[in-house]
Amino acid sequence: MRVGIVGCGLIGGKRAKSLAALGHTVAATADISLERAQALAKAYPGCDAVGGWRELVARADLDTVVVATINDSLASITLAAVEAGKHVLVEKPAARSAEELRPVESAAQQAGVTVRVGFNHRFHPALLKARELVDAGAVGPLMFVRGRYGHGGRVGYDREWRANPELAGGGELLDQGVHLIDLTRWFLGDVSRVSGFAGTFFWDMPVEDNGFLCTHHADGSVGWLHASCSEWKNLFCLEIYGKTGKLQVDGLGGSYGLERLAYYRMLPQMGPPETTIWEYPGEDGSWNAEFRAFEAAVAGRQGSGATLGDAVAALDVVAAVYAQSAGDGRRAA
Amino acid sequence: MRVGIVGCGLIGGKRAKSLAALGHTVAATADISLERAQALAKAYPGCDAVGGWRELVARADLDTVVVATINDSLASITLAAVEAGKHVLVEKPAARSAEELRPVESAAQQAGVTVRVGFNHRFHPALLKARELVDAGAVGPLMFVRGRYGHGGRVGYDREWRANPELAGGGELLDQGVHLIDLTRWFLGDVSRVSGFAGTFFWDMPVEDNGFLCTHHADGSVGWLHASCSEWKNLFCLEIYGKTGKLQVDGLGGSYGLERLAYYRMLPQMGPPETTIWEYPGEDGSWNAEFRAFEAAVAGRQGSGATLGDAVAALDVVAAVYAQSAGDGRRAA
Amino acid sequence: MRVGIVGCGLIGGKRAKSLAALGHTVAATADISLERAQALAKAYPGCDAVGGWRELVARADLDTVVVATINDSLASITLAAVEAGKHVLVEKPAARSAEELRPVESAAQQAGVTVRVGFNHRFHPALLKARELVDAGAVGPLMFVRGRYGHGGRVGYDREWRANPELAGGGELLDQGVHLIDLTRWFLGDVSRVSGFAGTFFWDMPVEDNGFLCTHHADGSVGWLHASCSEWKNLFCLEIYGKTGKLQVDGLGGSYGLERLAYYRMLPQMGPPETTIWEYPGEDGSWNAEFRAFEAAVAGRQGSGATLGDAVAALDVVAAVYAQSAGDGRRAA
Amino acid sequence: MRVGIVGCGLIGGKRAKSLAALGHTVAATADISLERAQALAKAYPGCDAVGGWRELVARADLDTVVVATINDSLASITLAAVEAGKHVLVEKPAARSAEELRPVESAAQQAGVTVRVGFNHRFHPALLKARELVDAGAVGPLMFVRGRYGHGGRVGYDREWRANPELAGGGELLDQGVHLIDLTRWFLGDVSRVSGFAGTFFWDMPVEDNGFLCTHHADGSVGWLHASCSEWKNLFCLEIYGKTGKLQVDGLGGSYGLERLAYYRMLPQMGPPETTIWEYPGEDGSWNAEFRAFEAAVAGRQGSGATLGDAVAALDVVAAVYAQSAGDGRRAA
Repeated sequence: MRVGIVGCGLIGGKRAKSLAALGHTVAATADISLERAQALAKAYPGCDAVGGWRELVARADLDTVVVATINDSLASITLAAVEAGKHVLVEKPAARSAEELRPVESAAQQAGVTVRVGFNHRFHPALLKARELVDAGAVGPLMFVRGRYGHGGRVGYDREWRANPELAGGGELLDQGVHLIDLTRWFLGDVSRVSGFAGTFFWDMPVEDNGFLCTHHADGSVGWLHASCSEWKNLFCLEIYGKTGKLQVDGLGGSYGLERLAYYRMLPQMGPPETTIWEYPGEDGSWNAEFRAFEAAVAGRQGSGATLGDAVAALDVVAAVYAQSAGDGRRAA
Repeated sequence: MRVGIVGCGLIGGKRAKSLAALGHTVAATADISLERAQALAKAYPGCDAVGGWRELVARADLDTVVVATINDSLASITLAAVEAGKHVLVEKPAARSAEELRPVESAAQQAGVTVRVGFNHRFHPALLKARELVDAGAVGPLMFVRGRYGHGGRVGYDREWRANPELAGGGELLDQGVHLIDLTRWFLGDVSRVSGFAGTFFWDMPVEDNGFLCTHHADGSVGWLHASCSEWKNLFCLEIYGKTGKLQVDGLGGSYGLERLAYYRMLPQMGPPETTIWEYPGEDGSWNAEFRAFEAAVAGRQGSGATLGDAVAALDVVAAVYAQSAGDGRRAA
Repeated sequence: MRVGIVGCGLIGGKRAKSLAALGHTVAATADISLERAQALAKAYPGCDAVGGWRELVARADLDTVVVATINDSLASITLAAVEAGKHVLVEKPAARSAEELRPVESAAQQAGVTVRVGFNHRFHPALLKARELVDAGAVGPLMFVRGRYGHGGRVGYDREWRANPELAGGGELLDQGVHLIDLTRWFLGDVSRVSGFAGTFFWDMPVEDNGFLCTHHADGSVGWLHASCSEWKNLFCLEIYGKTGKLQVDGLGGSYGLERLAYYRMLPQMGPPETTIWEYPGEDGSWNAEFRAFEAAVAGRQGSGATLGDAVAALDVVAAVYAQSAGDGRRAA
Repeated sequence: MRVGIVGCGLIGGKRAKSLAALGHTVAATADISLERAQALAKAYPGCDAVGGWRELVARADLDTVVVATINDSLASITLAAVEAGKHVLVEKPAARSAEELRPVESAAQQAGVTVRVGFNHRFHPALLKARELVDAGAVGPLMFVRGRYGHGGRVGYDREWRANPELAGGGELLDQGVHLIDLTRWFLGDVSRVSGFAGTFFWDMPVEDNGFLCTHHADGSVGWLHASCSEWKNLFCLEIYGKTGKLQVDGLGGSYGLERLAYYRMLPQMGPPETTIWEYPGEDGSWNAEFRAFEAAVAGRQGSGATLGDAVAALDVVAAVYAQSAGDGRRAA
């Protein structure tokens, strides 16, 4: 593929590296800072840093666009790229709201292009393995999922773009919580009802720093999820309960700790379960794995990547929690 | 103290052993099975096994009664003992419902006797230490508490008394969940509002096997709690978040794993917190510690033991979750 | 089998329970304390408590004898049982010294009976699995084994029989160290040379409380072993290194902590290894597994149980370390 | 201080960064690759990259030299710097052998300059805390130290300079093992006798990839140490045993895992020890701490940094193990 990257920050750089590793051509870059676009372009022979994203999506020599900007431009750039006939990989949450994203979904369908959303957590090795075990029936029919995800921010976090509702569209629930929602939907299916609470406990900012929610799914299963940016020790944990066993994913590498998957298999005599644990001390391979799934989707094969529909559904859940929290949810720090 | 024990099962036996270790006299025992009362009495010189609990609470030579029966008789026996002028330590949850317990509270006040409820988790060393740290301001003002508690049952669990609503008064939320509620109240204070969901996912029984709840407290703090008896690997975890740090209690010893307390202290520069962990590999000392607190309460000193008011408040929370789950909460397995 | 048990202490009791569970008949018991023999016999219908071990080994209605006495009588009772034509399972270390045990080995050969030595650690699930992985080539040719084993004693430990050289034959090296030696031989084969050091660092006793040793094996592989009864936190760890991976066993359950096996598989690109961990939270099944291997040996099938030759070889290693430590090894506490 | 750095690789760069952070002036750099010296100099305003180390040590504007080359030049450059009247911080092991280092020790004494050796492990927070606890008597008189240290190499490791006896002076025992020896001496004092074994088990190289050694100290205490570069999962563990407790350091951060210190305090009743654990998730502060100790030493205050005498003593231990292994120790892979 010949790929253009819009948004040349941390994530844009990771995507470029992954694209090159997979044999694709990073052909053009764009960023609100031309300097940043040029810095990234320089690392990839033949890559042009262009003046802006409009110019980039219009280029005839690209078949694919990666959109890795901050939240406020994700949807509009994706829409323009889709209308220009490009396949798009857009970073999560793909938009500030479901309202913003629905038109993109329609446009993509009309244009006949493939759009996938960068819910890369699905592609972490522990989660891929968990999914494989669930699909193989290793824990039986699923009952509920428990998710905890959070970080401790950093000095001045409440002055960054993520604390600005205009730029971010929401707070922690939209930022990290949306990963939990996506993973829960990935395992339990569509959300039929949600109850939750978004509150601001610590940071001096007009978006929530904690989101608590309970998702109900068609088959009666439940998601019990909490995302926090006042989680002083970085944490990721997803526990998946079936009628014959449990899977637990801990860590995402780096400051989130060693990634591992524990499989607890209930025995006929019950009592302590049979326990197997896999650890993943290596580098984060989720970016490559996700892009391979994107390639497959472009080639018309079904894959495990998140669609625009998945992102719309996750954003609907976020919006429902915000609506329920309107009265009392957001309190002063 | 001269103590009579009503209910000579596992917990009654533990109480007797603890009483003796603390220098009290186990003077009388009663049980619906006389044989069981006799077996326990035999282990304590001079102890009489009496015909029934009515006879026991009427004995003039006792000043204290321990009530360790199954849930359906906790309140009525406690009431009779109180009316007979005895101090009482009654096992949690002290009744099947708040309605059942409120008259006992009034009677105790009128009789001028001391009643404490055996929420023994408060007296586990990791929780005592957590409380001490919170009181010393080690984590700053509290923001929220996250609790997970559960076990995996055993073959036939859904045929035991805990699965019978008449005898138990409720399911897992009342059984283990009530400990989480009590601990959350102990740290965050009274519950002003609760939302939750009690459901039956696995066991073939007319009470819930999972309780999920979110408690809201007067100061805006939140409890996020889940109790489960389809928790295939036994688990106890309480995470306490303040504005300057976090405390995490894991395990209760035995099949719940090594009990430990981790203290994460946020540094001014933020980033990874300073971390100290205490492990408690020794025997469960909560029974002795709880009874010492009971002694102090009888002697008129304030202590950390749970009062009837605490139990009523916890049962009110349970009832509120049951009410909210009435429509759809309890589904067939 | 119809089995007689000599030595009715903790281990004798465990053996009886295991025998019954496996469908054998516990037909007779003997102990230097008749009372203790009777107490054990009472639990098994039709079992006789006899006056002494000589009487027991002479009984015609027994085909098998389990010898579970303290060290000073293991060899002589086993010899008598063998001469009486019985199969024997004798607890480790089977004798106080190789000298004491060699005649038993000859006698067993002459009598054509089966004798196995209770090195039950081979039958712990993590070690069985480790052996299976080694045999399957999962870690390639073995290079070395590192073993650490120890406990913290208890008040008065230095006044117990294990502190008496006449009764025990040696100290910690003979008591727990011999398990490490046996396991190392099980993985690496015969010991061609040993260097080591036995010393008394803490306890007030005329036997060593710490044994350090390095075993060299025919293929150039090495065992690096340390056993200690001044190991304040109980510990068992065996690390097995091959040219393409590593296995690590931690814990033996109970006070030694959760038993688990970690398998680190080196990848072609090296770097962090692929990691899989199995945990064994269940009850200690080593006693049953060991006796099943004994049954197989009696039936003429080869098994994984330790032979008298294995015990002689392990005791030779112990003796070599003692000889090297004679000058300076044992110092006052 | 005005400091010149000889050797501008990974470690030289770390030292420069630390020097600047502590307010010193990185005034000159030298390396066998002028380009590398220039690259490092560029990062520090006013810093000159000079043509070679002889030129650097002769500069009148420097008072201190950091020597961070590979092993074959450490001693000779340090000698020249000392003779030029500079204070020197030389990286461990300071020389390829004690023979090479002894003249440097004499020269430094004559010149009246301060030389310290970069055994930076002493300055890791877990080890500093362990030392502080030992000094405070927290574990009583020391009995023995158990150390395990190793890494898994990388593809082509046996073709790097560390595999070349001329350049390195030895193998794994000299490379990582010397840290274990230094730490053991730091806790237990001078080594009076050593027995050990250096062997080549995996890598195709003429130096050992594993060193096993037992050090005996004047007070009867013992070090039991193993260093390995066929340790497939990177590992650092130092266990320090006293008569009333144990300290255990695990990890060094990064690929060696989270650094932590466990303190097991034996109770009068013995049984499970009281356990406290400190974790050090932050950045490696050992470089700054070590340099602060160097500053103190230059200022004439005693500190915890390793002296040339410490390095000579550690190299003597290494040489003794090599001598004992001469016959059979180094075998083909």
